[in-house]
Amino acid sequence: MTSEAAALGRAGALLTIDLDAVAGNWRRLSARAAPAECGAVLKADGYGLGAAPVGRALFAAGARSFFVAHLEEGIALRAVLPEPRIVVLNGLLPGLAADYAAHDLIPALNDLAEIAAWAGHARALGTALPGFVHLDTGMNRLGLAPEDQERLAADPSVLDGVGPIAWMTHLACAEEAGNPMSREQLDRFRKAIAILPKAPVSIANSSGLFLGPDFRGDLARPGAALYGINPTPGRPNPMAQVVRLQARILQTRRVDTPMTVGYGAAHRVEGPARLATIAVGYADGLPRAASGRGAVRIAGFTAPITGRISMDLITVDVTHIPEALAAPSALAEVIGPELPPDRVAESAGTIGYEILTSLGRRYARRYLGGTE
Amino acid sequence: MTSEAAALGRAGALLTIDLDAVAGNWRRLSARAAPAECGAVLKADGYGLGAAPVGRALFAAGARSFFVAHLEEGIALRAVLPEPRIVVLNGLLPGLAADYAAHDLIPALNDLAEIAAWAGHARALGTALPGFVHLDTGMNRLGLAPEDQERLAADPSVLDGVGPIAWMTHLACAEEAGNPMSREQLDRFRKAIAILPKAPVSIANSSGLFLGPDFRGDLARPGAALYGINPTPGRPNPMAQVVRLQARILQTRRVDTPMTVGYGAAHRVEGPARLATIAVGYADGLPRAASGRGAVRIAGFTAPITGRISMDLITVDVTHIPEALAAPSALAEVIGPELPPDRVAESAGTIGYEILTSLGRRYARRYLGGTE
Repeated sequence: MTSEAAALGRAGALLTIDLDAVAGNWRRLSARAAPAECGAVLKADGYGLGAAPVGRALFAAGARSFFVAHLEEGIALRAVLPEPRIVVLNGLLPGLAADYAAHDLIPALNDLAEIAAWAGHARALGTALPGFVHLDTGMNRLGLAPEDQERLAADPSVLDGVGPIAWMTHLACAEEAGNPMSREQLDRFRKAIAILPKAPVSIANSSGLFLGPDFRGDLARPGAALYGINPTPGRPNPMAQVVRLQARILQTRRVDTPMTVGYGAAHRVEGPARLATIAVGYADGLPRAASGRGAVRIAGFTAPITGRISMDLITVDVTHIPEALAAPSALAEVIGPELPPDRVAESAGTIGYEILTSLGRRYARRYLGGTE
Repeated sequence: MTSEAAALGRAGALLTIDLDAVAGNWRRLSARAAPAECGAVLKADGYGLGAAPVGRALFAAGARSFFVAHLEEGIALRAVLPEPRIVVLNGLLPGLAADYAAHDLIPALNDLAEIAAWAGHARALGTALPGFVHLDTGMNRLGLAPEDQERLAADPSVLDGVGPIAWMTHLACAEEAGNPMSREQLDRFRKAIAILPKAPVSIANSSGLFLGPDFRGDLARPGAALYGINPTPGRPNPMAQVVRLQARILQTRRVDTPMTVGYGAAHRVEGPARLATIAVGYADGLPRAASGRGAVRIAGFTAPITGRISMDLITVDVTHIPEALAAPSALAEVIGPELPPDRVAESAGTIGYEILTSLGRRYARRYLGGTE
């Protein structure tokens, strides 16, 4: 029995996550960020790969600043990592300041009301509480709007009790190296902080680290690139692949006369052909939008997805693959070195991020390397 | 504090699942299936709603036959429901017959090799083991191909040890009432079982129950309709809605001059406008494909999604909603009575099934009714 078969056990598919590759990616990004500090974004359960094991591996590699989206994610990560800085990007939820403070979490402060609430909580505790003040420079999603930035500059005393602080902003178009928006956002950010109290700044996400030294700031916040997503779309991917998803072939069949395959009889096989049915479907995160467009790899061969992706199953064309290699119990690679998340995403009309965060719960999961 | 705010707690969104509605839907389908038995499909964690609570509610309502996709799903459901029949649709995994038998699970037997393995295990145990023999009639996905059906008919002794048995097949186009494929599949199925040992049959999925009495068989297997998906697309939905997903407004902002919103600066707001940022994103199962097309409901008003859906956030246009109703901490309905899964799916170019099975893990979950 191969180690893969053993790891698969009774599951239909095996998800292998290479923590050494994540750590290697972080080191690469960290070298690029230097002399700035390089943090790591672990929101959405570490982009679907497990915030706890990924967090431990990155802490061991040297990361000391982590970012999550939700308060609950911060609390869960704090239980795993007692030491590092953990910032909650979605901000300070009304009435819950005590929960952030109790778990030593730093809220991104996204508007003046959040600043007032956090500062008020600090004063009530009689201590200073750290905060990341998010200045919006063009995402129009979270963060202080320009008029609120001016109000804050006019009366920075509303921050009394919040400290140390950091100023952060978020880039809207960092993946597009030539897009003037990034430079415009940087200019707005510099203008804003010029009239605000001096403090460290955090600007770059993964792609921002590839826009040049101006975007480094003092603390970078890469996420996607840690997990193997290409931070420089259209150019070679400088990151190592992290994820491999392999699913069982359950059954194969010959089609000798023209026939339709799957739901809606949407795909016609003219035959003679051989089809394999594989234990992965859209409930496992393989988007239904990849129906008839995506492919899997079997023993080094490409097998196109035929017909519609079902909830628990796909059917692929294995006509051109030697029969012994595409037999029941063989494993098909659905995501992996030959089919990186970015490629799978392309066949589904989306981005690699969504492929990762949609990874299902029915897989056997195996972590390689790291501290697991 | 409303009960919703209490249930939401520290989460960004609240998923409410109405188990009484699921049970009511099952009773409605059961009446339609009568005099046949009506089972229930609980695969993919009960279509994302929780196989354990849904299973308990349906058992209490009278369901006695349950269907899952994976062996592991069967084992987990058996731990919750000791009594009813549980069928594993993805079939008998090689070398694992003892696991099915030990947990009193019935494999769908999808080819002659699976029949031989299950029959062999039964003979080794010196007992009979029940099996659902799946005859493919046109899905070309799982089940005995026509030539294997003939071989089985020529020598039914390969089934010795398997009993009681049932014959099952799966419809490819049941949602399309006028599609001749369903009748063709029924004809093939009848021809196949005419030369096989007499046993109960299972044909209809949710939509199959709406194709007329010929499709009832002896045991229906509805799934999607239990969870509120319309089994009769294009006609009024006869099922009750089961799911409500409400997410927090985190922040609102005015846009007075023309500006872009979100990633890629893909959406332009001419202003004056008001935007709200809401704590739900594609990592929570709201497909990125609904960017710029979907909407949420706030206090009875429709708020269109502006720009790209992010991993953890969406931005919506609340210009036409009274300011006090679309303020931070108010809840936006993302899925619910006014935005059923089928409608959300439409805005993302997919089907309600995928909306349900993609529901994320970061929600506070609340079950209404049932036995919870």
